[in-house]
Amino acid sequence: MQAIVKAQRAPGLTVSTVPKPVAGPGEVLIRVRHAGVCGTDLHIADWDAWAQGRISPPLVVGHEFAGEVAALGPGVTEFQVGQLVTAEGHIICGHCQACRTGNGHICKNTRIIGVDRDGAFAEFIAMPATNVMTLDGIPTEIGAIMDPMGNAFHAVLSADIPGSTVFIVGCGPIGCFAVGIARAAGAAKVIASDVNPNRLALAKKMGAHVVINAAKDDVVRTVLAETGGEGVDVVCEMSGVPAALHQAFATIRMGGRVQLLGLPKGEVSVDFASEIIFKGITLYGVIGRKMYETWHQMRRFLSSGLLDPRPVITHRFPLAKIDDALAAIRSGDAGKVILEIA
Amino acid sequence: MQAIVKAQRAPGLTVSTVPKPVAGPGEVLIRVRHAGVCGTDLHIADWDAWAQGRISPPLVVGHEFAGEVAALGPGVTEFQVGQLVTAEGHIICGHCQACRTGNGHICKNTRIIGVDRDGAFAEFIAMPATNVMTLDGIPTEIGAIMDPMGNAFHAVLSADIPGSTVFIVGCGPIGCFAVGIARAAGAAKVIASDVNPNRLALAKKMGAHVVINAAKDDVVRTVLAETGGEGVDVVCEMSGVPAALHQAFATIRMGGRVQLLGLPKGEVSVDFASEIIFKGITLYGVIGRKMYETWHQMRRFLSSGLLDPRPVITHRFPLAKIDDALAAIRSGDAGKVILEIA
Amino acid sequence: MQAIVKAQRAPGLTVSTVPKPVAGPGEVLIRVRHAGVCGTDLHIADWDAWAQGRISPPLVVGHEFAGEVAALGPGVTEFQVGQLVTAEGHIICGHCQACRTGNGHICKNTRIIGVDRDGAFAEFIAMPATNVMTLDGIPTEIGAIMDPMGNAFHAVLSADIPGSTVFIVGCGPIGCFAVGIARAAGAAKVIASDVNPNRLALAKKMGAHVVINAAKDDVVRTVLAETGGEGVDVVCEMSGVPAALHQAFATIRMGGRVQLLGLPKGEVSVDFASEIIFKGITLYGVIGRKMYETWHQMRRFLSSGLLDPRPVITHRFPLAKIDDALAAIRSGDAGKVILEIA
Amino acid sequence: MQAIVKAQRAPGLTVSTVPKPVAGPGEVLIRVRHAGVCGTDLHIADWDAWAQGRISPPLVVGHEFAGEVAALGPGVTEFQVGQLVTAEGHIICGHCQACRTGNGHICKNTRIIGVDRDGAFAEFIAMPATNVMTLDGIPTEIGAIMDPMGNAFHAVLSADIPGSTVFIVGCGPIGCFAVGIARAAGAAKVIASDVNPNRLALAKKMGAHVVINAAKDDVVRTVLAETGGEGVDVVCEMSGVPAALHQAFATIRMGGRVQLLGLPKGEVSVDFASEIIFKGITLYGVIGRKMYETWHQMRRFLSSGLLDPRPVITHRFPLAKIDDALAAIRSGDAGKVILEIA
Repeated sequence: MQAIVKAQRAPGLTVSTVPKPVAGPGEVLIRVRHAGVCGTDLHIADWDAWAQGRISPPLVVGHEFAGEVAALGPGVTEFQVGQLVTAEGHIICGHCQACRTGNGHICKNTRIIGVDRDGAFAEFIAMPATNVMTLDGIPTEIGAIMDPMGNAFHAVLSADIPGSTVFIVGCGPIGCFAVGIARAAGAAKVIASDVNPNRLALAKKMGAHVVINAAKDDVVRTVLAETGGEGVDVVCEMSGVPAALHQAFATIRMGGRVQLLGLPKGEVSVDFASEIIFKGITLYGVIGRKMYETWHQMRRFLSSGLLDPRPVITHRFPLAKIDDALAAIRSGDAGKVILEIA
Repeated sequence: MQAIVKAQRAPGLTVSTVPKPVAGPGEVLIRVRHAGVCGTDLHIADWDAWAQGRISPPLVVGHEFAGEVAALGPGVTEFQVGQLVTAEGHIICGHCQACRTGNGHICKNTRIIGVDRDGAFAEFIAMPATNVMTLDGIPTEIGAIMDPMGNAFHAVLSADIPGSTVFIVGCGPIGCFAVGIARAAGAAKVIASDVNPNRLALAKKMGAHVVINAAKDDVVRTVLAETGGEGVDVVCEMSGVPAALHQAFATIRMGGRVQLLGLPKGEVSVDFASEIIFKGITLYGVIGRKMYETWHQMRRFLSSGLLDPRPVITHRFPLAKIDDALAAIRSGDAGKVILEIA
Repeated sequence: MQAIVKAQRAPGLTVSTVPKPVAGPGEVLIRVRHAGVCGTDLHIADWDAWAQGRISPPLVVGHEFAGEVAALGPGVTEFQVGQLVTAEGHIICGHCQACRTGNGHICKNTRIIGVDRDGAFAEFIAMPATNVMTLDGIPTEIGAIMDPMGNAFHAVLSADIPGSTVFIVGCGPIGCFAVGIARAAGAAKVIASDVNPNRLALAKKMGAHVVINAAKDDVVRTVLAETGGEGVDVVCEMSGVPAALHQAFATIRMGGRVQLLGLPKGEVSVDFASEIIFKGITLYGVIGRKMYETWHQMRRFLSSGLLDPRPVITHRFPLAKIDDALAAIRSGDAGKVILEIA
Repeated sequence: MQAIVKAQRAPGLTVSTVPKPVAGPGEVLIRVRHAGVCGTDLHIADWDAWAQGRISPPLVVGHEFAGEVAALGPGVTEFQVGQLVTAEGHIICGHCQACRTGNGHICKNTRIIGVDRDGAFAEFIAMPATNVMTLDGIPTEIGAIMDPMGNAFHAVLSADIPGSTVFIVGCGPIGCFAVGIARAAGAAKVIASDVNPNRLALAKKMGAHVVINAAKDDVVRTVLAETGGEGVDVVCEMSGVPAALHQAFATIRMGGRVQLLGLPKGEVSVDFASEIIFKGITLYGVIGRKMYETWHQMRRFLSSGLLDPRPVITHRFPLAKIDDALAAIRSGDAGKVILEIA
């Protein structure tokens, strides 16, 4: 089959022919229809320091996808050939305390498809049945981006949203999803910031009441003005930019909640006393998606029409055009970039 | 001033002239503009067993209202004459453990306006400043019904709503408010039942995805069919009808949450093992409004436009027409009935 | 091997020789050392209406046990032969929404060992590896009763205990465990009631500050007097007796929490308005043990010495003396009755 | 009356004669028996940068105390002359959203006794009745330290403690209280660290299972070894030392909770990705005491005998010996230092 492969310990990705996987015991073979391209894939293509430490070529890359059940491995009874499905890309051990209590998102033995084992930028992928989710009418182009959208759902819905004021810091695809989710969950006011006008336009399209261009405007003053001087109830920090992190702490109200998802490079200096402790706030590190509470919530939002994430999909490419897909992400102007595989 | 008075220990209400109240220390005098008529007022008018045990005439009745600050008593600094306000009608002691921990709704020393002391069906009412809430742009006709709407907010928002399936049992005014609140808070599916087609039409108008005529249709079968056989995540029991209570238990999913607000007359026989324990569910008794968390949430929903409760207001009368207002409620066809006082 | 068998659709249990089970794929074969005898076993022995509707003889009975890993089925890597273990007796589907979110205790597809398939009153039992828990130094005689003790942990620890006042209604084995758990978790005052003086003595031994003989004393008055008239923060209803259920509602403070575990036979009439709604309380139906949050907590309490449940074990019998074990339970005087198998 | 006064904008405190306060409307006059000396008092005495920016002499200092009700101001009915009481030293506005929802600890308009207005190192103090708590049998020497002990209660009990492993970082008085509280609330293992052997001995006395001398031992390695390599469920950071903050993040388990109470001077550099986000943890800024949930819990622990904090009190001085009291704190060897006033 055709697949996008990290072939060597050097920059670049290759479109190659590789053996079609087989569904082992407890596994489901899925014919991939759509796949999402992620910043992680860019790191692997560019062969940066993180990739050099983590990736062992040759490897089929890609971890966001949806498709059709093509075959069932021995012992799998809960799916049927032909069903449209997506899958959680974190393969967990199932034995540890976290896994046994519904907290698989913090399993220490997690292996990620397209990173630690072969991934989804391919015509077929075999996945453990426990990771597979039926789409229940959700189109595969949306199913293909439920992995990153799930991070946004995890971040937003682990706060108390109905009637709250919410500030989304950073309007990349996950930030834009978060805007839409917060609106759908009954936020009273959603404010979003970014330095890129295209992304702010996308956030507006997803329902932000107020957007702030952080390159031009005074973010903190604007957020405070929009909330009667109190600050917002919930901040979702999706940018990983140190300055934005300080804005998060300056705009959260006393006793509010800051969801941390954006990954700063290196250390950030924080005044714990004034920025966190004296404000009586709660911070929460958002990693992956709750397995599978987040997926269940997400499927409900998508299949009921509460959220339409399609405006965030700005680019579509065939499998062979992976370099163009990566270039679109590099430009900083893209929303979500997907591959149309079958 | 003019007021509606329970003058004697006998059926009936009287429109009378009574002394205008004065704002004592810590109190606010409010010129009433709109007031809501409630089933409680009907009990007092009809002089039923409950009223005979609780009410000491003469008494100005009415506990739902909004108006304009007319004067401030000594020591009140947080309001200004002319502000539009509403007020919580439960006057709590402020000293007990419940009051001191933000749980004033369960203060054992609660006194209710229009029941235990003079109420709001009058041109003026004096209220403790701690009970008064500014309307922040919400019209007084809506402000006047924030007391009963608050019960609906308390019932709905003390469950986890975004992405959930919700069944509202009973479509009186509070049930209809609950439908709109559940929709605004991101419920994936809202189902509502009643025996009255007018009320079901109102529930539909407030956003119910599915309405069930409990007089004709099989409620349990319909709810299960609408939820893939699983049952709903949340039931709000707003009817107090014994049969409906059993429907609540039969339609809640395993591990779900039943909010109990409707007051059954007398005892109801329940099979605790099969209806509650083996289902692993949680029941919650909804009394009043959280003071003042519910009010804050409600003000956010109303001032941001997340919820427009006006379709539920079906009748408006001047103060003098209180008998017509009561008749409208007795008919069973009314949504919310309000008095236009000033 | 030797086992206790329900051989026919008639009263009685038989000690028989049956084939030794084999560990299939994903299973663990366990040599049983100790087993706990439960009221459920009595229902099966007595062949009551419930048993007639649920049990299909021939069946090895028993669902509470601990022992030593004797063999591992294909694919099981997380255990080692010789480890001391116990196991959750509810075998869940693993695929449904409840199972996938750490709520296996409410899986609708649950099958129970000793009820729906062969059980643990035998020299060996094969269990799915996912159900097996290592004992981490806990003796097997305690491991054997972690199933019912888990119900007590689930009931007590799903309430907020540190500093709370707790009323345990019913001092059978689960009630007595609950007394000890509440004490260990920092309850400020633990009150326990029963009609049997032996059981009350056991509750006292487990740490109850106050015990009430419900056959002689005024339960409600005593509990209110012990709590300054306020009522307790948490009630654990472990008796299933209708009168006790009303005592639960009469003694819970406004806004408190009632954990319902005892199973009333048939329906109980309740005044929902005065007993539940006007009190603003929460009720929770306790079914099984949270899989596996409860087990993890319980193992922590037992291996750290926070709780010593051994005073509750009042009777020990060899496998062959199952009739004597059942008689001890029937007497109403027993605490926990266990079988010493190997 | 005699009082300890910050007389001038310069280092030092003075024992002076000042006018006895009077109980105004809604206030209670309290004859102080015992008072606690705090690091804050040291800052004021030393006239450091913080004190220079915050304090306006002349000011009676001191904010931790207990005593006897000496007189009631107009309108106060819930207390009686002669009752033994303590008081929350944060005087809040009562009108803001935080105050109205039981979250007075994050009121932005808080004024602190002994800092923003006259305090408790005096023979008498007048306090708003809303701040006063009866001692219910707790001795005044313990009542005098319920303010700082309340911070420890707030930190510990806002995490889930029964059965948990808890690491207390820093064994000053608040850390030592936290050790005792965690033990009383059913922690399975309590580990404590400090650089001072006297403080570690005190932590041991309060019940720590394991103490670590951070000046000599490898803190992270020890905590991981004590928790099977997993890390602890809950960290209470009580030191404010940057290195200790990193130890907190290194020793918390995946998905655990870090309570931040110690105030670092200046900024601390943190790797948000690896120390917080990828661990999926929750951080909580602990400010003051929940008003009045924390006080209620604390009174329960103390009056029931769950916690005896007296070992932490290492020094007692008369009012006139305030300089000796401050010197004891400066030494770094003291636990809690109290003044015996009446």
